[in-house]
Amino acid sequence: MKKFLWFAALLVTVQCGFAQNLENLAQAASTNVPGNEYPKLDSNRCAYFKIYAPSANQLEVDCGSKYKMQKDEKGFWTAKTNPLVVGFHYYSLIIDGVSVADPSSRSFFGCCRPSSGIEVPEGKEGDYYRPQKVAHGQVRSCLYFSESKKEYRRCMVYTPAEYEYNTTKRYPVLYLQHGMGENETSWSNQGYMNNIMDNLIAANQCVPMLVVMDNGDVEAPFHAKSGQSQDEARAQYGASFIEVMLNDLIPTIDKTFRTYTDREHRAMAGLSWGGHQTFETVLPHLEKFAYIGAFSGAIFGLDIKKSYNGVFADAAEFNKKVHYFFVGCGTQENMGTKTMADSLHKNGSKVAFYESLGTAHEWLTWRRCLKEFVPNLFK
Amino acid sequence: MKKFLWFAALLVTVQCGFAQNLENLAQAASTNVPGNEYPKLDSNRCAYFKIYAPSANQLEVDCGSKYKMQKDEKGFWTAKTNPLVVGFHYYSLIIDGVSVADPSSRSFFGCCRPSSGIEVPEGKEGDYYRPQKVAHGQVRSCLYFSESKKEYRRCMVYTPAEYEYNTTKRYPVLYLQHGMGENETSWSNQGYMNNIMDNLIAANQCVPMLVVMDNGDVEAPFHAKSGQSQDEARAQYGASFIEVMLNDLIPTIDKTFRTYTDREHRAMAGLSWGGHQTFETVLPHLEKFAYIGAFSGAIFGLDIKKSYNGVFADAAEFNKKVHYFFVGCGTQENMGTKTMADSLHKNGSKVAFYESLGTAHEWLTWRRCLKEFVPNLFK
Repeated sequence: MKKFLWFAALLVTVQCGFAQNLENLAQAASTNVPGNEYPKLDSNRCAYFKIYAPSANQLEVDCGSKYKMQKDEKGFWTAKTNPLVVGFHYYSLIIDGVSVADPSSRSFFGCCRPSSGIEVPEGKEGDYYRPQKVAHGQVRSCLYFSESKKEYRRCMVYTPAEYEYNTTKRYPVLYLQHGMGENETSWSNQGYMNNIMDNLIAANQCVPMLVVMDNGDVEAPFHAKSGQSQDEARAQYGASFIEVMLNDLIPTIDKTFRTYTDREHRAMAGLSWGGHQTFETVLPHLEKFAYIGAFSGAIFGLDIKKSYNGVFADAAEFNKKVHYFFVGCGTQENMGTKTMADSLHKNGSKVAFYESLGTAHEWLTWRRCLKEFVPNLFK
Repeated sequence: MKKFLWFAALLVTVQCGFAQNLENLAQAASTNVPGNEYPKLDSNRCAYFKIYAPSANQLEVDCGSKYKMQKDEKGFWTAKTNPLVVGFHYYSLIIDGVSVADPSSRSFFGCCRPSSGIEVPEGKEGDYYRPQKVAHGQVRSCLYFSESKKEYRRCMVYTPAEYEYNTTKRYPVLYLQHGMGENETSWSNQGYMNNIMDNLIAANQCVPMLVVMDNGDVEAPFHAKSGQSQDEARAQYGASFIEVMLNDLIPTIDKTFRTYTDREHRAMAGLSWGGHQTFETVLPHLEKFAYIGAFSGAIFGLDIKKSYNGVFADAAEFNKKVHYFFVGCGTQENMGTKTMADSLHKNGSKVAFYESLGTAHEWLTWRRCLKEFVPNLFK
């Protein structure tokens, strides 16, 4: 018995020591503001959070799941998460009931506000979205006036490295939209889209193209106005962007940049609500677009015969017009993407279906979708 | 007596009604995340803040001065400020002692973290920094590898509208630095530098130029490391950026963009600590720069005969080399700028001194300084 107790004590000591060691060896997240040790990540992809709040009564971290923080005698609160999925996650601190961004984290527009984020690195997964020693494109912030909305707007335009010196060459354009509660900065800040494009172009896996990211007018949460049903409100959510895109954005881009302006050189894709907006924009306007992508698209109750004026009904006609049609999602989410792809298949539509292993409604799904999607454009 | 009481009651009612009316007529700040009514600003430039925090014990707003918030029976906390100076102000919420960003505000990197900001508009003051119906330049986010620091870095490059189609013309370059606790995004997000440049260029008040804004390596607060004196630490604060700028950034810009690469076409300016970094970078390297600006520059104890290897001692030589030398500050701050300008004058140095009326160590000072400075470059 004595021997067993001794062994048990040793085991506890070793395990605690091991746990302590894991935290000590943990590295500050790359998404932190420089100078901040926390949040940090250990080799098991567990995150550690720490904040000084001697006068607060209750602190939590909300990182998909909620974790109660523990206070020490000096007024520091700490929490450790379960292992996190590789890639980017939004998180919040909840201080005495108020959900706010962590001052230690860089800011990422998501969840309808400037949010905290934590990037979980691992092994080779990130090679395609990390900066490599290749030629780098630019992400350009462009101001323009929208006649539809009578307002100045900002779009972000990725230009490949060669755009800078191939000054007579024209380029095809992918319009790429963020999700609900995000904005025109999300694909570059959270999605690392510029690294993905740089790396694919350098490896000759996709043709050099411009990628245009605008604000989908869904920064504010979804709300039905008084006298409006939920369904009516949903139908209107971000609808103003479609007018902006067709009437203001595309003409601005084609006037400002060296683009090909025909449908054969224009694609659109989006994630989540941006996937919904992609269908709403492209399907009634196949005279303007030849490529379509929806990443975890918020497309519910598709009726092959009737939806979008029956554009899917004649599969042969659709397949002739649309040169590549991609839908993707994560295995850990349920947006109905597979069911939709199956019914489109059954109807004879050519649709590429991609499933991201082990990921939910999150940025790793969408980084992978982008990597799968763009090599098939403009070829 | 009765009459007086009645009159007093009426007066209170009218005043309250008037105050209530001012708040009702107040407009959501342009710096808010869309969909948020608060913070808002009335016609007296007073700001109103409101947040739902039923479980918190104490809330304050820190907007230069601190204001205690009052809780109503529904759990909403509100505060009203005194009249604010026109332009941009950082602010924080303090929730039970923890200073955080307000979820209602867009995010501005400043005060060593993603901060809340409020833009106070008024009349014609802002015309030069507001978007006008003129040709718009771009602000390009550019990734590059720094050999000095062995890291990927990001700089922001403003290109004038004509850069896009004048594809054989070369351009002069202004390197423009932010202050302590800010970063490469601050001049465009807080300073509206792209609007200032667009408007000046459109009015033919300055020559079209590139403006390069990098991270001055001062995002983290100033701290002496163990074994280091405050003075040693101060001397090292952001010093790594100077190596980056001279050895990595300038060569990257000159390789990537159509620039003139001689000293006659290169300027540097900065605000606060960026002014300090400008002096530290430019004065020992007048073979690379011909124009200098410091906006509320953190330059203390200048010795005309000895500082910077005595570069100011021979005023005639200095005046021959430096084509325009500008120092500016606000009348409500005390960075010693006027004293420095006076002593330089007395020594015979040509230095333009500009004072911004009624402003402190704040962004309106620096927007005005930029507007005064750039028309004198490269002419």
